[in-house]
Amino acid sequence: MDRRKFVSAAGLAGAVGLLSACGNQSGAQTECAGQSSRQTFAWKMVTSWPRNFPGLGTGANRLAESIGMLSNGRLQIKVYGGNELVPPFEVFDAVSRGTAEMGHSATYYWKGKVPAAQFFAGIPFGMTAQELHGWIYYGGGLELWQEVYAPHGLIPFLAGSSGPQMGGWFNREINSLDDLKGLKMRIPGPGGEILKRAGGTPQTIPGAELFTALQTGIIDATEWVGPYNDLAFGLFRAAKYYYYPGWHEPGTGLECMINQAAWNTLPDDLQAIVKVACQAAVMDTLSDFTYNNGIALSTLLKKHRVQLRRFPDKVLARLSEISADVTREMAAESELAGRIYASFSAYQEIVNPWTAISDRSLLNLRPDYQGAE
Amino acid sequence: MDRRKFVSAAGLAGAVGLLSACGNQSGAQTECAGQSSRQTFAWKMVTSWPRNFPGLGTGANRLAESIGMLSNGRLQIKVYGGNELVPPFEVFDAVSRGTAEMGHSATYYWKGKVPAAQFFAGIPFGMTAQELHGWIYYGGGLELWQEVYAPHGLIPFLAGSSGPQMGGWFNREINSLDDLKGLKMRIPGPGGEILKRAGGTPQTIPGAELFTALQTGIIDATEWVGPYNDLAFGLFRAAKYYYYPGWHEPGTGLECMINQAAWNTLPDDLQAIVKVACQAAVMDTLSDFTYNNGIALSTLLKKHRVQLRRFPDKVLARLSEISADVTREMAAESELAGRIYASFSAYQEIVNPWTAISDRSLLNLRPDYQGAE
Repeated sequence: MDRRKFVSAAGLAGAVGLLSACGNQSGAQTECAGQSSRQTFAWKMVTSWPRNFPGLGTGANRLAESIGMLSNGRLQIKVYGGNELVPPFEVFDAVSRGTAEMGHSATYYWKGKVPAAQFFAGIPFGMTAQELHGWIYYGGGLELWQEVYAPHGLIPFLAGSSGPQMGGWFNREINSLDDLKGLKMRIPGPGGEILKRAGGTPQTIPGAELFTALQTGIIDATEWVGPYNDLAFGLFRAAKYYYYPGWHEPGTGLECMINQAAWNTLPDDLQAIVKVACQAAVMDTLSDFTYNNGIALSTLLKKHRVQLRRFPDKVLARLSEISADVTREMAAESELAGRIYASFSAYQEIVNPWTAISDRSLLNLRPDYQGAE
Repeated sequence: MDRRKFVSAAGLAGAVGLLSACGNQSGAQTECAGQSSRQTFAWKMVTSWPRNFPGLGTGANRLAESIGMLSNGRLQIKVYGGNELVPPFEVFDAVSRGTAEMGHSATYYWKGKVPAAQFFAGIPFGMTAQELHGWIYYGGGLELWQEVYAPHGLIPFLAGSSGPQMGGWFNREINSLDDLKGLKMRIPGPGGEILKRAGGTPQTIPGAELFTALQTGIIDATEWVGPYNDLAFGLFRAAKYYYYPGWHEPGTGLECMINQAAWNTLPDDLQAIVKVACQAAVMDTLSDFTYNNGIALSTLLKKHRVQLRRFPDKVLARLSEISADVTREMAAESELAGRIYASFSAYQEIVNPWTAISDRSLLNLRPDYQGAE
C-alpha cells in the first residue's frame, strides 16, 4: 500500500480555523456544515478500457469528473486507460495493493482470482440490467459483493452498465451446434466456459487487440459489447462477419473498486459522494449505451450492410442448459459463492414473473422486428 | 417568490477566513478546494405522494437525505407529503411561485397547464424506462423539458422511475371493447384521454383517496402504480377485483422540479450535487420498484389469490390506435410540443430495433409465464 498518496491540503490548524469561521447563523443547522471539507485527495483510477473508449472509458471519465465537481475539487481523480499505468486485466491487483486507489472494470475479468465475483456482472441467460440493479441495491447483492472483495482489501460499487450485449461477430453462420465445434472465439467469463463445453475454444483478449486478432484470422469470432462499441472498433471491417444477438451478457454491470485503506481516509461526505456518483454512473452509462447502441445499430445495418442473424433455438437451448451447469458449479466453489447463488436464484424466482407481466408483456405488444432484411 | 428562504450560514467574512485557511499544500490542486462551502440552504420539497409512501414518498425522502449528506449539511431539504404544505396536484404551482424550492412529482399531472410536459413521463405504448432514460439523458429530452418549464420559472430533472406500471384493478373482466363503455376509472394523463375515447369515464383522484373510492363504488376501476404500491394501499381488499398488466405507463419517469431563482443562488458544487443526486435517484427508485414489485406480486398472487388477467389483443390494438391519435394531437398543441414529439418519435425509430434484438429477444428466451392460474 506504500505507493498510495493521500494528500492533506490543510492540517488540523486549517480545520480548527474553519470551525471558528462558521457559526450557527442559518437557524436550520445544528452543526457547522462543511466541517470536514479542508482535506483534499488526489487519486488514481486504473481501468480495463482503452482510454476514452466510448461508453466504457468515457463512462469512467465522467464518473471521475462528477466526483471532482460534487466534492468541489476535494477528491480529484486521474483516470488511466488500460496499459497506461497497469495492464487492463491487472486492475484488481493494482487497486488491491494500492498502486491506484480506484479501478473501473467488470467482475468477470477476475474469474481466476475471485470466481464468486462473476455473479455481480450478470450471468448468461440471467437477469436484465434492470433486474440486476434491483438485486444489487435492494436484494442483498451489494452486501454479498462487499463480502467477496473484503479479503482483498477492496470495496466494490456498481458504477456502470453496458446493458444487454451482443452475441458477437462470426466468420460463418451458426446453423447448428456443430458450427460451434472448434470455433476460436474471444469470449471471457462464464460465456467462454459455456462455449468451451459446446466444443469451441474461448479466448480472453483485451478489447484493443480484437480488430487485429479478427483480421489476421487468429480467432474465428468475437463478442465485444454491442453496436456502439463494435462500430467504434470497426469490427465489421475486419472481415466478412455475421452479427448475432446475445445470450451470455444480458445486462452487464460495471464496477468501481476502491482500495479499503484509501476509502477509510475519506470523510463521510466524500464517501457519500463516491457512492452516489457511482449509482448515478450506472444510470448515465446505461442511458449512453441505450441511446448510442440504437444509433450504431442503424449505422451498421443501413450504411455498412452488416448481416444480422439469429442463433437457432436448438443452439440457444443447449447453451442455456450448459449455462445452468456452469452456474451451479460456480456456486459450488465456496460457501460464499453458494450463498450468492442462493440469493441470486431466489431473487430471479421473484422478479421473473414481474418482468414477464411488465417489460416483456409491453415489448411484445410491439410489431415484430424483422432485422436487417 | 417572496416566501423563499435562502439561508446564508456565513457571510463574506467566513468565506474570506476560509480562503486564508486553505493553501495549495496538495500539489494536485490549483485552487482552494471547497471554497464556496460556507453558505448553507434550508429548502422545502413538496410532493404529490402520501408521506413516506413506498417507492414514491420514500424515494423523495432518500433524494433529500442524499443531497444533505453529499453537501455535508449545506443543502438541507425538508420533505412534505401531499396536503402537508400544498395539495398533491398543486406542486407545480407551489414551486413555480416559490412556496417551496423543490417539488417531487410526475409531469402528466400538469396536463391542463403544460400539456407538452406529458411526454417526459412517458407515453402509452411508448418507451420502456430504459429507453426513456436514453432519450432524456442522451437524446435531447432533458433540454426540451427545460424549455417547457423555463417560462414557469422551473428547472426540471428526471429524479425517479416507477418502471412499468400495471393496467389496474377492474370490478369486471374486460373481454371486449364493450366492457370499457361507461367504465368509471381513475386514470390520469394520456391514458385517461384514451379511455375516454374508448367510451369510458376517466377520473383524476389522488392516490390516498383510491381505496375509499373503490370500496364505495364511486369508481369501477383504478390504476395506481404496480404491485408494490397497490399492495401498500390494500386495493385488492377494496372489493373483488381483477388485476391487469399495463399499457398506458410503460416506464414512468418521476421528476424533481426546482424553482429557478432558488437554483440560481446555489454554488456550482451544490448544483452538481442536486443534479447527480437526482440521476442516482432514478437508479435507486427503479431498483426499489423492480425488487419490491416482484415481492409484492408474489404476495398478491400467492397469499391474497388476486385474479391476474390479460386484456384481449383486440382491446389492446384499439387502445394503441387511439393512443397514436392522442399523441399526435398532443404534438399539435404547440410548436414546442411538435418538436418534442419529433424528437421522441425519431428516437423511437432508432431505439426500437435495438431493444428488439436485445432486451426483448433476451426476455423471449425465457419460458412463457403462465400467470396466476
